[in-house]
Amino acid sequence: MKQAIGFIDSGVGGLTVVKEVLKQLPHEQIYYLGDTARCPYGPRKPEEVLKFTREMSHFLIDRGIKMLVIACNTATAAALVQIRAELDIPVIGVIQPGSRAALKESRNNKIAVLGTIGTVKSEAYPKALKRLNHQVEVDSLACPKFVSVVESGEYKSAIAKKVVAESLLPLKNTTIDTVILGCTHYPLLKPIIENFLGADVAVINSGEETASEVSALLDYHGLLDSGGDTIKHRFFTTGSTSIFKNLAEDWLGMQDMHIEHIKLGEGGKQ
Amino acid sequence: MKQAIGFIDSGVGGLTVVKEVLKQLPHEQIYYLGDTARCPYGPRKPEEVLKFTREMSHFLIDRGIKMLVIACNTATAAALVQIRAELDIPVIGVIQPGSRAALKESRNNKIAVLGTIGTVKSEAYPKALKRLNHQVEVDSLACPKFVSVVESGEYKSAIAKKVVAESLLPLKNTTIDTVILGCTHYPLLKPIIENFLGADVAVINSGEETASEVSALLDYHGLLDSGGDTIKHRFFTTGSTSIFKNLAEDWLGMQDMHIEHIKLGEGGKQ
Repeated sequence: MKQAIGFIDSGVGGLTVVKEVLKQLPHEQIYYLGDTARCPYGPRKPEEVLKFTREMSHFLIDRGIKMLVIACNTATAAALVQIRAELDIPVIGVIQPGSRAALKESRNNKIAVLGTIGTVKSEAYPKALKRLNHQVEVDSLACPKFVSVVESGEYKSAIAKKVVAESLLPLKNTTIDTVILGCTHYPLLKPIIENFLGADVAVINSGEETASEVSALLDYHGLLDSGGDTIKHRFFTTGSTSIFKNLAEDWLGMQDMHIEHIKLGEGGKQ
Repeated sequence: MKQAIGFIDSGVGGLTVVKEVLKQLPHEQIYYLGDTARCPYGPRKPEEVLKFTREMSHFLIDRGIKMLVIACNTATAAALVQIRAELDIPVIGVIQPGSRAALKESRNNKIAVLGTIGTVKSEAYPKALKRLNHQVEVDSLACPKFVSVVESGEYKSAIAKKVVAESLLPLKNTTIDTVILGCTHYPLLKPIIENFLGADVAVINSGEETASEVSALLDYHGLLDSGGDTIKHRFFTTGSTSIFKNLAEDWLGMQDMHIEHIKLGEGGKQ
């Protein structure tokens, strides 16, 4: 039977990674879980994010996934090491691919990371970037308003433009040449962010590099889909199915998506 | 103690992969072995290529590498599956990364693969490409003269231009939009190949994508170098050290390289 690749996120952000995986691996089946009811994860304590990430992982493991992508930077920073140790399928996050992509792009090794409060506090990006290249200079900027702008579906609006301009003001007139979208929600704001920062700054969506890593690891572990059975993607959310559906259909270019509502934690059946 | 990443090739071709790895992972130590004395591998039988690849792998394993890159398409096609099963360190080849990079680049999914006779006969590229995307159309073209043009140091000469033009004539006026350099020697001819094929055809050197895979797998296995000890790259060849040195210094932009001559097979101490 066809086995899916599992994706988990605090909400809809991980769909930006799914989009790239569907492009690079069109015959793979996707199971996605967005914990919209408890979004945002950014301001929460690492222990709580680990607990939630563990609950999401087990929900998808129970449905038979062959690989897990923690498609959320906050959860990657707080939980990747532990979840990888606990599960016996390949588990990857988005911080390492994002760092790799940024270092490939940057010409002067001056990189800024935009992220949630949790991701910035964790210093996961500066650590990952400096591990790959000791010479890199990294600035981190928390953009706590971005996630709610995206989750509310306002990511193309005038509000989005205003929030982006206010939040990214510290990056104007610096020598930074590469900015990492260190939260999987932020690629939905990418056109506005690029427009604000100008053509000299490369804006990195870690989705493409994460998709390449998914492809490489599936191959390495002999888990690439061999074709055959019909693909049936499944999308789960702990929050509103209608908001999720609108955004997912717009972003993924899919139609008539069926979104399943589920419960996690004390209210759910684990 | 610092552990190196091992690279093996039939000759100097794998240096095109090393170049990208040094760019993406500047703090990693490299051990490289080119089996120049028995180059080219392309026309040899798969069983013989497997035997030679096994000898090269063990030479580097004995020197304590933490990961092995089969930086040769012919050897990847003939030996990757077996060598991966036999060794207890991560082992990757160049065909899967090359396929991934080509599919990311192509807009019409019409791809040509240039390779040695051995690689073309193995059908490793069409299989890898179609496994990732069933819709792709693949043409294969053996270019048996390319390796000796490169190994003889003639890769910028008028001879190289003539050989490229004659070999790639079948690709002129086709709808192919992406060409994979399916032999690690060929990137040294890339400027001439691009010039002949024109701006509408993307020419894929699998080195960059292979380097990304090396980085991803080292991270996944917790093997990224943590800094500290001084880096001492080592380069071994079974052939002429002076030809190897000239080409390696030109290609890698290094100076005063020390190339070590070794013997493999019946003549060597395994």
